[in-house]
Amino acid sequence: MTETLLAIHQVRRPDGWPTAAHFAFVEEILPAPVPGTALVENLYLSVDPYMRRAMDGSWPLHAPLEGRSIGRVVASQDPALAIGDVVFHYQGWRTHALVQAADVRILPQMPQVPLSAYLSILGGTGLTAYVGLTRIAHLQAGESIFISAASGGVGNAAGQIARLLGAKRVIGSTGSADKVNHLVETLGFDAAFDYHDGLIHELLAQAAPLGIDVAFENVGGEHLEAAISALHEHGRIAWCGLVGEYNSTQPSTAPRNLSLVVKKNLRLEGFYVRDYTDLQSELEAFLIPHIQTGRVVLDQTIIQGFEHIIEAFLGMLHGEKRGKMMVQVSSL
Amino acid sequence: MTETLLAIHQVRRPDGWPTAAHFAFVEEILPAPVPGTALVENLYLSVDPYMRRAMDGSWPLHAPLEGRSIGRVVASQDPALAIGDVVFHYQGWRTHALVQAADVRILPQMPQVPLSAYLSILGGTGLTAYVGLTRIAHLQAGESIFISAASGGVGNAAGQIARLLGAKRVIGSTGSADKVNHLVETLGFDAAFDYHDGLIHELLAQAAPLGIDVAFENVGGEHLEAAISALHEHGRIAWCGLVGEYNSTQPSTAPRNLSLVVKKNLRLEGFYVRDYTDLQSELEAFLIPHIQTGRVVLDQTIIQGFEHIIEAFLGMLHGEKRGKMMVQVSSL
Repeated sequence: MTETLLAIHQVRRPDGWPTAAHFAFVEEILPAPVPGTALVENLYLSVDPYMRRAMDGSWPLHAPLEGRSIGRVVASQDPALAIGDVVFHYQGWRTHALVQAADVRILPQMPQVPLSAYLSILGGTGLTAYVGLTRIAHLQAGESIFISAASGGVGNAAGQIARLLGAKRVIGSTGSADKVNHLVETLGFDAAFDYHDGLIHELLAQAAPLGIDVAFENVGGEHLEAAISALHEHGRIAWCGLVGEYNSTQPSTAPRNLSLVVKKNLRLEGFYVRDYTDLQSELEAFLIPHIQTGRVVLDQTIIQGFEHIIEAFLGMLHGEKRGKMMVQVSSL
Repeated sequence: MTETLLAIHQVRRPDGWPTAAHFAFVEEILPAPVPGTALVENLYLSVDPYMRRAMDGSWPLHAPLEGRSIGRVVASQDPALAIGDVVFHYQGWRTHALVQAADVRILPQMPQVPLSAYLSILGGTGLTAYVGLTRIAHLQAGESIFISAASGGVGNAAGQIARLLGAKRVIGSTGSADKVNHLVETLGFDAAFDYHDGLIHELLAQAAPLGIDVAFENVGGEHLEAAISALHEHGRIAWCGLVGEYNSTQPSTAPRNLSLVVKKNLRLEGFYVRDYTDLQSELEAFLIPHIQTGRVVLDQTIIQGFEHIIEAFLGMLHGEKRGKMMVQVSSL
């Protein structure tokens, strides 16, 4: 056990794309647990798209940052936590954390279920996909769905969960030919396209010639416009994110065909997963058997070493990797 | 009983605002009922905003037009219909109609409930308002609501029904100072504004300084943008119509703040009342007691004489009158 921990602080607000200059590594003395707390050595740290928005305001400057994390208890002053327990908590962006015993969850360790899954398809990322499909869009068996940013953490989870829910046709957009292949060959999408290859509404119309019933929208702008155009009457859009806008100093283009919402009786709904955390156990019961059989692929990019967390975060924002991005700080 | 009937046919498609030149009066021999049918002399004919859209395609040219109507049976070849019965049917835009007995509804005649109410707040117009509030926006007691085109048939019904549902604050937009006074003084709106008086989002912010929970959207464009801006987190928009667009050769401006749908977790949903006709008896049970006590005002403009039906329709489109517009063809 080291005598110090390393943490990341945000040190200035970005205007457009963030860079390493917006962050700083800070070394601190390792705190000793007081009653009701435990010291955790972090194993995995999550970096997520929502953090880009937090950088604009909700994250404090020059202070520790929040983030979904998995760690191992190394010292405890609470009877509920034993040394060696693996816990899920929200004190991310640091090598060690002093956690309140009441604020953490001891993770089960099950065969064929890697701990990292609790930051990807079994974590907030997968829950976002599950909520959007089952509680916002109400995807039904036999329906067709379009997922934008489908190679990202939420997108790949949405595609795989849509398949498990009985979707007839799962279509994804992504940013490279390599990712298109990955969606179709490895993740079981029926069709996928690289949005650089033409007008998005034309690419979607080719991939979904019979139209779609549901859109899982992670981007906004032209992607949203294409989805509105392709949706059948009574179609639903679960609008989860704005990755096309987070790093722009301009708002994304509003869809020029928005009046189709009334003409086709569409429903467009934005949501945050934080309002649905009570569905975590439902998510796990639904997915774990499929993870164990291999039917659900853990589509993750795990960067090794805490010193690379800023690169991991920026790479995720730039779409450089596939799947859920996280950082491995230490091993069990 | 005359030997002929008069009917209106549409004779060409409009490009922008329709005029009398798009219609023609046609005289026909009065048909005699055959078994299973009855001849009806129409009393009231409805003219509605959705008909403007029908003119662009779904209405046939040089043929009788559909429309909600109330008539009196003057000859019958079906045991279910007796001479003198008052019926609701869909063969509008004509003085007489040969109806299938199975396709009509015999209207109850109740004290303090004028028959014309079955074309306004007890008809498709009121049902549109009721569905939008209870099934689309799920307005809750204590919530605040903004209604655009509030002096129209659907708008005034939405305002009055919102009040009955326990809305805390009902705000309307309309097109003249006279209509503003009518909304507040006669229909019980808490606030109203003339949308010509400034930027709509500023006028709405003044009328609803604490924001709104629900918007009942009849217009689109800048009205929709203002509603999105004023809505609280988890706000809902029941999007019913596009009166700002129907007569324009340009689509209305898309709201520039649409990304607030995801940032504020809003829900924007278009709907047609035709999918909810099974709620008709619920609507009547809810409203009739309030009509009988006078708590609900029948806000109607009834134009006298079939020969004025085209003027009535065009006047409704131009917002020249208040409340639900209809034509009285004959009297009981």
